[in-house]
Amino acid sequence: MNETIFGSIEFQMSLLLFVALAGYLIASRINQSAVIGEILVGILVGPSVLGLITYTEFVQSLAHLGAIFLLFVIGFEFSLRDITNPRYIVIAIVGVLVPWIGGYLATTMLGYPTASALFVGTALTATSIAITANVLKELGRLDSPAARAIIGAAVIDDVLSLLVLGVTTDLIKGALEIPTLVTSLVAAVLFIGLGLLVGIQIVSPLLARLDCRPLARQYPEFVFLTALAIAFLYAMVAELIGLSSIVGAFIAGVSCREITICQSKDPREGAEYLQVIFAAIFFVSLGIIVDLHAVTPGITVLIVAITIVAILTKLIGCGLPARLFRYSWRESAVIGFGMAPRGEVAMIVALIGLNQGVIGQEIFVSILLMSLVTTIITPIVFQNWLFRAGSSTDPGTASD
Amino acid sequence: MNETIFGSIEFQMSLLLFVALAGYLIASRINQSAVIGEILVGILVGPSVLGLITYTEFVQSLAHLGAIFLLFVIGFEFSLRDITNPRYIVIAIVGVLVPWIGGYLATTMLGYPTASALFVGTALTATSIAITANVLKELGRLDSPAARAIIGAAVIDDVLSLLVLGVTTDLIKGALEIPTLVTSLVAAVLFIGLGLLVGIQIVSPLLARLDCRPLARQYPEFVFLTALAIAFLYAMVAELIGLSSIVGAFIAGVSCREITICQSKDPREGAEYLQVIFAAIFFVSLGIIVDLHAVTPGITVLIVAITIVAILTKLIGCGLPARLFRYSWRESAVIGFGMAPRGEVAMIVALIGLNQGVIGQEIFVSILLMSLVTTIITPIVFQNWLFRAGSSTDPGTASD
Repeated sequence: MNETIFGSIEFQMSLLLFVALAGYLIASRINQSAVIGEILVGILVGPSVLGLITYTEFVQSLAHLGAIFLLFVIGFEFSLRDITNPRYIVIAIVGVLVPWIGGYLATTMLGYPTASALFVGTALTATSIAITANVLKELGRLDSPAARAIIGAAVIDDVLSLLVLGVTTDLIKGALEIPTLVTSLVAAVLFIGLGLLVGIQIVSPLLARLDCRPLARQYPEFVFLTALAIAFLYAMVAELIGLSSIVGAFIAGVSCREITICQSKDPREGAEYLQVIFAAIFFVSLGIIVDLHAVTPGITVLIVAITIVAILTKLIGCGLPARLFRYSWRESAVIGFGMAPRGEVAMIVALIGLNQGVIGQEIFVSILLMSLVTTIITPIVFQNWLFRAGSSTDPGTASD
Repeated sequence: MNETIFGSIEFQMSLLLFVALAGYLIASRINQSAVIGEILVGILVGPSVLGLITYTEFVQSLAHLGAIFLLFVIGFEFSLRDITNPRYIVIAIVGVLVPWIGGYLATTMLGYPTASALFVGTALTATSIAITANVLKELGRLDSPAARAIIGAAVIDDVLSLLVLGVTTDLIKGALEIPTLVTSLVAAVLFIGLGLLVGIQIVSPLLARLDCRPLARQYPEFVFLTALAIAFLYAMVAELIGLSSIVGAFIAGVSCREITICQSKDPREGAEYLQVIFAAIFFVSLGIIVDLHAVTPGITVLIVAITIVAILTKLIGCGLPARLFRYSWRESAVIGFGMAPRGEVAMIVALIGLNQGVIGQEIFVSILLMSLVTTIITPIVFQNWLFRAGSSTDPGTASD
C-alpha cells in the first residue's frame, strides 16, 4: 500500500505543491526569488538528499506543461515590435558562438576527446528562457529594454542552438550536411515568422470573434480552451521543427496578447492560474533532476571549469555586443547574466549526448550541475545586485 | 520523428483540447451537455474509430487531475449542512444494495460463474459523482434540493462501495474478514468527519489568515498554491483509505468554501480555470478508454442486460427512497438518474477484477460499455426531460 501511494498522482502532486510552498517561504526568508527557493527545496526532497520524490515521467510531464504555460503567459507581455530587432540577432549569434567555442576549448584542455568537447560546447549554447523570464516577471521588469533584449535574443538563440546541435552531430559523424542544416534554419525562421503572422492576423481576431458568439455565452470557457489548444498546437509544431516547444508557446502568447475579452473567461487570466501551479512544479523539478551523489571529487574540476566558462561566455558573448549597441554597462550586465541560465535545455542536450554515447556519465553530471548553477546564479545576481530594490540607476530607461 | 511527435506531450495536449472543443461544438449543435459531446468525440479519435490517441499514462494522469480539480470546484458550492442529512444515508445504502444484488442476479442468470457475477454487482454499486455534478453545474442546478441529495448520497455511496468491494473480494476468497471491513468503514467515516472538521476549523481560517500576511502581498499566488496543495493532500488521504481521491478533493472544496480573499489570487477562481482544461480532458478520456472493437455479437446480450440493470437499480434504489422521503416524483427521478452514471469508477473496478483474474475479457468490456452508456444517459435525460428549459414544474422548490 505504502509503495503504491508514493507513486500515486495525489501524493506526487501534493508533495510537489507543498515543496513549492516551502520554496516560497525560504525564498521570502532569505529575500531571494521564489525560483531559487523552489529549486533548493527540490534538491532537498529529490534523490540528492531525502529521496522522497524522483524525476518520474509524471513529474517530467507536469514540469513540461509548466514551462509551456509559463512561456505562453510571458508571451502576453510582448508585442511583435518588442521581440524583433536586428540587434537581438547579433546578441544571440555572438552569444551562441562564444559559449560553443569556449565550452569546446575548456573541455579539450581538460583532456576530454573532441567529440565530447564539441557536445559540451553545444550544451552551453542554449539559454533557458523560462528562468530569466520568470525572475524578470517576479521583479516587475519584463517591460525594460534589457528584458526585451533578453527575451528577443533568447528566442533567436533557440533557433541557433538547433543549428549548433545539428552541426555538432554532423561533425561527430564526420560529414557536415549543409542542406539539412539550411532546411532546419529555414523551417525554424519560417515557423516563427508565419506563426506570428497567422497568430496576429488570424488566430487573435478569431478568438475575439468567438468571444462575441452565442456559443461563448453558453460556454464561457470556450475561448480559453481554444487559446490553450492553439498554444499547444504552436508548441507541437515548434517541437516538430526541432525548436523548444516553449518557444512555440511563447509565440502563441505574443499572438494572443491583443485580444480583449467581453463575455468569456479570460485566456490570459486562466493561463496565469495554470502557470502558478505548473511552473512551480517545473522549478521544483529542476532540483529533483540533479542527483548530487553523482558529484565525485574526480569531476569537480570539470564541473567548476564548465560552469565558469558557461557564465563568462554568455556574459561576454551577449553583454559585450549589448554594450556595443549602447546599452548601459548595467543593462549589458543584465543581458549577459539574463542569458546565462541553461536550465532544462542543457539538461535535455546532455541527455541526448548520453543516449547517443557521445558523452560519458562524468560529462553528463557536469552539464547537469553547470545547468543548475547557471540557473540559480541569475536570480541571485538580479535580485541582489543588478535590480536591487531602491537602486537609483535603473537599467530600464535608455537606448531602446 | 512522426512516431515520437504522436507520443509527445504537446501533440496529446493539443489534440485533447481540440477534441474537447469539437465536443462543445457538437454538444451545442445537438443541444446536449458538453460532457456528451466530449465523450462522443473521444470515442471518435480514440481506438474505437480513428485511433489518433490511446489511453496512455499521460492521458490517464491528466484525466485524473481533471476529476480532482472538478470535484474540488464542485465542493465550493456546498456547505457542510448541504451534504449531511440522514436521508442521504438511506438513499445511498438502498442505492448500493439494489445494484449489487441486481447485477449479481442478472449475471448469474446469463450463466456466468458466481465470482464474476458478484464482481459485476460490485461494479454497479458506485456512482461517478463527477459526471452528474458537472451536468448539474452546467445546467445551473447545483443548489436544488435534488442536486444536494445526489451529491450527499454520492459521497456516502463511495464509502459503501469501498465496503462492497471489500466484502466481494472476501466472498470470492471464501473468508469474510469482518474486522478489516469494520476498520475500512471506520477509517472512511473518520476521514470524512475529521477532514471536514479540520478543513472548516483549521484549514479555512489558515488560508484566510495567510491572505492577510505580507507574504501574500509579495506572492499573490501563495494562497492559491496552498489551497491546491491541501486539496491534493485530502485526495491522497482519501485514496490511501480506499475511497476515491475525488471524494477527498470534494471535502477539501467544501472546507474552503467560506474563505473571502482580499489581496491574493482567488483559489476558487483559479481552480475553476484548472477544471476547465483538465475536466475537459477527463470527459474526452472516458470516450478514449473504450474500444468499441471489443464489442462482439456474442456479448451484446450481456452488455444490454447489465446496462439496463445498472440504470434501473439506481433509479429504483435511489429514486424510491427519495420518493418515500417526500421528494416529488420528478425530483425522485432526478435523484435516481443522477446516481446512475458509473463513469470511471466502474471502469477502475472492472480493471481490478480483470487484473485479479476474477472476470474475463467479455465481462470487462461489458462493464466498460455499461459505464459509458450510464454516463451518457444522465445528461441526456436531464437536459431533454427532467430539466428541460422552460419546464414549469421545476424540481427545485420543495422538501429540503
